[in-house]
Order: sequence, then C-alpha cells, then structure tokens
Amino acid sequence: MTKPLIKTLTVVGVGLIGGSFALALKAAGVVERVIGVDRNADNLALALQLGVIDEAAASLADGVCSAQVVFVAVPVGSVAPVVAQAAPSLPPGCVVTDAGSVKEELVQVCEPLIPSGCHFVGGHPIAGTEHSGAAAAFAELYRGKRSILTPTEVTDADALELVRQLWQAAGSRVECMEATTHDRVFAAVSHLPHMVAYALVHAVAGSAEAEENILAFSAGGFRDFTRIASSDPVMWRDIALMNRGALLALLDRYLLEFSTLRSHVADSDGPWLEAFFHTSKRLRDGII
Amino acid sequence: MTKPLIKTLTVVGVGLIGGSFALALKAAGVVERVIGVDRNADNLALALQLGVIDEAAASLADGVCSAQVVFVAVPVGSVAPVVAQAAPSLPPGCVVTDAGSVKEELVQVCEPLIPSGCHFVGGHPIAGTEHSGAAAAFAELYRGKRSILTPTEVTDADALELVRQLWQAAGSRVECMEATTHDRVFAAVSHLPHMVAYALVHAVAGSAEAEENILAFSAGGFRDFTRIASSDPVMWRDIALMNRGALLALLDRYLLEFSTLRSHVADSDGPWLEAFFHTSKRLRDGII
Repeated sequence: MTKPLIKTLTVVGVGLIGGSFALALKAAGVVERVIGVDRNADNLALALQLGVIDEAAASLADGVCSAQVVFVAVPVGSVAPVVAQAAPSLPPGCVVTDAGSVKEELVQVCEPLIPSGCHFVGGHPIAGTEHSGAAAAFAELYRGKRSILTPTEVTDADALELVRQLWQAAGSRVECMEATTHDRVFAAVSHLPHMVAYALVHAVAGSAEAEENILAFSAGGFRDFTRIASSDPVMWRDIALMNRGALLALLDRYLLEFSTLRSHVADSDGPWLEAFFHTSKRLRDGII
Repeated sequence: MTKPLIKTLTVVGVGLIGGSFALALKAAGVVERVIGVDRNADNLALALQLGVIDEAAASLADGVCSAQVVFVAVPVGSVAPVVAQAAPSLPPGCVVTDAGSVKEELVQVCEPLIPSGCHFVGGHPIAGTEHSGAAAAFAELYRGKRSILTPTEVTDADALELVRQLWQAAGSRVECMEATTHDRVFAAVSHLPHMVAYALVHAVAGSAEAEENILAFSAGGFRDFTRIASSDPVMWRDIALMNRGALLALLDRYLLEFSTLRSHVADSDGPWLEAFFHTSKRLRDGII
C-alpha cells in the first residue's frame, strides 16, 4: 500500500489534463481527496459524477483554501489570472503548479503572485489526446510520457521534489529544464509545426475555391499531415502570443528554408533539390 | 470466369506500383501473361521468383515487342525516356500507359513518341505504401483507390476504354481529368505538403544543432507530421521539376499565407490569430 504524499489536491480546470492527473494520483494512492474547480458548471458536475473528483468547489477560493497542492490545468493564457485570483486564499505551505505549454513568461508572472510561505513550480506534461473535458480524462494518460518541470533560482526545493513525486506517481518520466530552453525546444518541435499546418490548410483551401472537388483527391497523406491543424484555436492563440519570441525565431528560420527551396524549384535545380530532400529524409529518419 | 481483356501485359519497372498492377490483373483473370522489364536484374529475378511476372525480358525491346499493353511504372522523370526507347519495338495496336504523378508535360512529350497505330494513355493511380520493390507488390493495392486517366484530344477512344477496364479490374475507381487540372490538384494536395514537410525538417534540424537533444521531446506529433519528409528524394526531385509551374503557384500562395501569419504573431494580434486558427480547423474538419 502506497503511503499518500498529500491529503488534498485541488484541480483547477477538470478537463483531459487536470482530470487525468486527478485519476492517476488517486489510482496510485498518493492523494486522499481531490477537489475540483471549473468555470463550466456542467463539466464540474460531470467530473464529480464520473468520480474524477471527490468534491466540487463552489468557487476558486473555496476550492484552494484547504489544498496542499493546486494543479492549474487551464489554457496557458489563463494560468496567471487563475493564480492571481487564488493567491489570497492559499493556505500556508501550499504548492501551486501548472500544465502550460509555454513556460518562461508564465513562470516570471506567477512566481511573484504567490504569497510568502507558499510555492510555485512550473510544469508541462507532454501528453494529450484530441479529446477534451472531464469525460475524456483517464488515469493512464501520463504513463510513460515525459513531464517537464522548470524550476528557477527561487523555487523551493521541497516543493519541487513533491511535484516531481506526484508526476512520477502518475507514471511520467520527469525532467527539469530552464524555462527559456523549454520554450525554444517546443517552439521547434511543436509550435512551429502547428503554424506550418495551419498555413497549409489555408493555402490549399484557397486553391479549393477555384478547384471545387480538389480535396476529394487528397488521399490519406493530406488528412494525416493536417491533423494538427484541427487543434483548439484559443489554446494555439495563447501559445503563439506567449511564446512569441522563440516562435518568431523559428518562423523566420522556416521562411528562410522554404524560400530557398522555392528559389531552387524556380531555377529547376535538380541536383540541389535531390540533395535537399535527401538531407530531410536522413535527418527525419535519424532523429525520430 | 472473367474473360481476359488482353493476352500479354508488359510491366516496365516491376516495383510496388508495376508489380501490384500485374498481380491485381492476374488475380482478376483479365490478363493471360505478364512480361517484366527492370533495369535492376536482382529485382527482376525476384519478381519472377515471387510470381509477380510470368517472364523476365532480357531487354526493353524484347519485353514490349509482343505486348498488347505496356505499363510504364518508373520514376516520373524516366517515363518519357523509357517510352522513347520502347517506341521502335512496339507492335501494331499496342497501348502504352503510365503511372506518373505529374501529367501535363509527360503526356505532351510521350504522345508524339508513339508510332502510328499505337496509342498512349496517361494515368496516375492514387495508391502507394512506404515500401518499394517487387517484394512490396500485392494484388489489393489499388482496391477502392482512385486511378486518374488524363486523355487528350488525340487519345484513341478504344485505348482509353481498355486502360479504364484494366484499372477497374484492379479494383480502382477510374476518373478522367485534364492533365493540367490533375497537376494543379496534386500540386495542392500532395506536392505542396511534401515541400512544406521537407522544409520543416530542415528548419527544426537546424535548431537541433544548437539544442542537441531537442528532438527527444518531439513526441508523436512531430513524427507523424514529418512522415512524408521520408519520401524518396529522386521521385520528389522529378515531381518538383516536372510540375514546376503548378507547384510554384502553390509555393507562392503558401509563402503568402505563412508570411501573413508570421506578421500577426510579430504584432501579437490575438483576435486575428484565433480567427486564422479557427478557420483552419473548420476548413480541415469540413473537407476531410
């Protein structure tokens, strides 16, 4: 029998990410009670009914006032406002952590909001599905997946260790990283590909206006390739805004590569094109 | 028992595409004998051993001289050279067709090469796997898939009908299309996405040099998204060269969409970004 790490966890935003964290920790026996907070009353009621949470809080203040750990699992642009609003109600020693996919600005803004005696630890679990809401939550979501924590010079060591143990109990492999490094890495491997896919759908759909059944011929490749362009628009707006600096650097790098490719297509430069495609294939096959 | 449509089919290039066509037509009972031609002697011997073909020709001339139909299934840049070399050996009434994924230039070049009394029909089956060679061929490859034929004003009606019947016997849904329309459609739904993916791998790998373990964090999304950047470099060089006109129009349309997106990220224009992503999601979900 695993000994509980904490008595009370409060999850703010009981969707796929927050709800799965609650279910995973309850399944692991490391938390005794989970309180849920959600601005969507129907979703909160469903979470309670499904047993994702043990108690539905009437307000954010009510929800966090008895928590040892508060997990803020809302769209990345809403994390800081939630932390600001919760701060006056946090009990002494409370540890606040989040799941936002952009970290530098978020951690910089949140740390000073936390009252003395409480602690903030930035986090980002690399997991998800295309579904959302409490009904989509499941205890195995984080099993074998990475969770990144981005402590700073002022992060409390015990708070960091507690958050690490919770993610490990949820089945994650935990890795610590500088927030700026995190944001550069994810600008490259996640944020840029999403921008590329969103622009591709616009470009092809623009052609589709002229060529009405153009997409009947798209076969599986286009469908698979553009799947990420179906991601949530608000989430990606927030990511683009909050990771603007790192993302712009990647957008410009991509524009350079793409424009160079375009000029060699225009020049009918066969040897260059073959070499460029060959390098892509080698890099992609080698790094995946 | 299906009555054979033709006695002898010659397949030039006995790989996934050519070999699967042979197997499908033999399984359907519409061809009596398949002769294979391949510049790779090992692959040709394997095709014979596996029963993909019934006879291995010693040369292109030997292979085509008794054929009713010649199926040229080589990289798109090699189709016209093969047709030119085969032309003097084609028997009267012979129908030559191909599987190239670019059609306008190819059909323009091939039609005049065909001797009087023989016929050319441009074709493009929309099917494939990531494997290649005779060992990858299987009779079901074309089942339920589209095959496009691109007849011109000079295409012989009986030759077109014969090629249509063969593709239908292979399980395909056959559709006729202008070669120029074909090339515009595939520039949008296939050729542009490949260029986008090739450039993306270069851009991200450029970052990987600075951030050595960047791709350990790429999760499934990046892997799935860049799968098409593993496609054959020579095949894609030929496609880029032969569909240069239609492709350039799409590359420029894409550059415009992507640059516009970049400028709104630079301006931190949240409402515009949300609307752009929302339109992508709606278009993509609606058209797939």
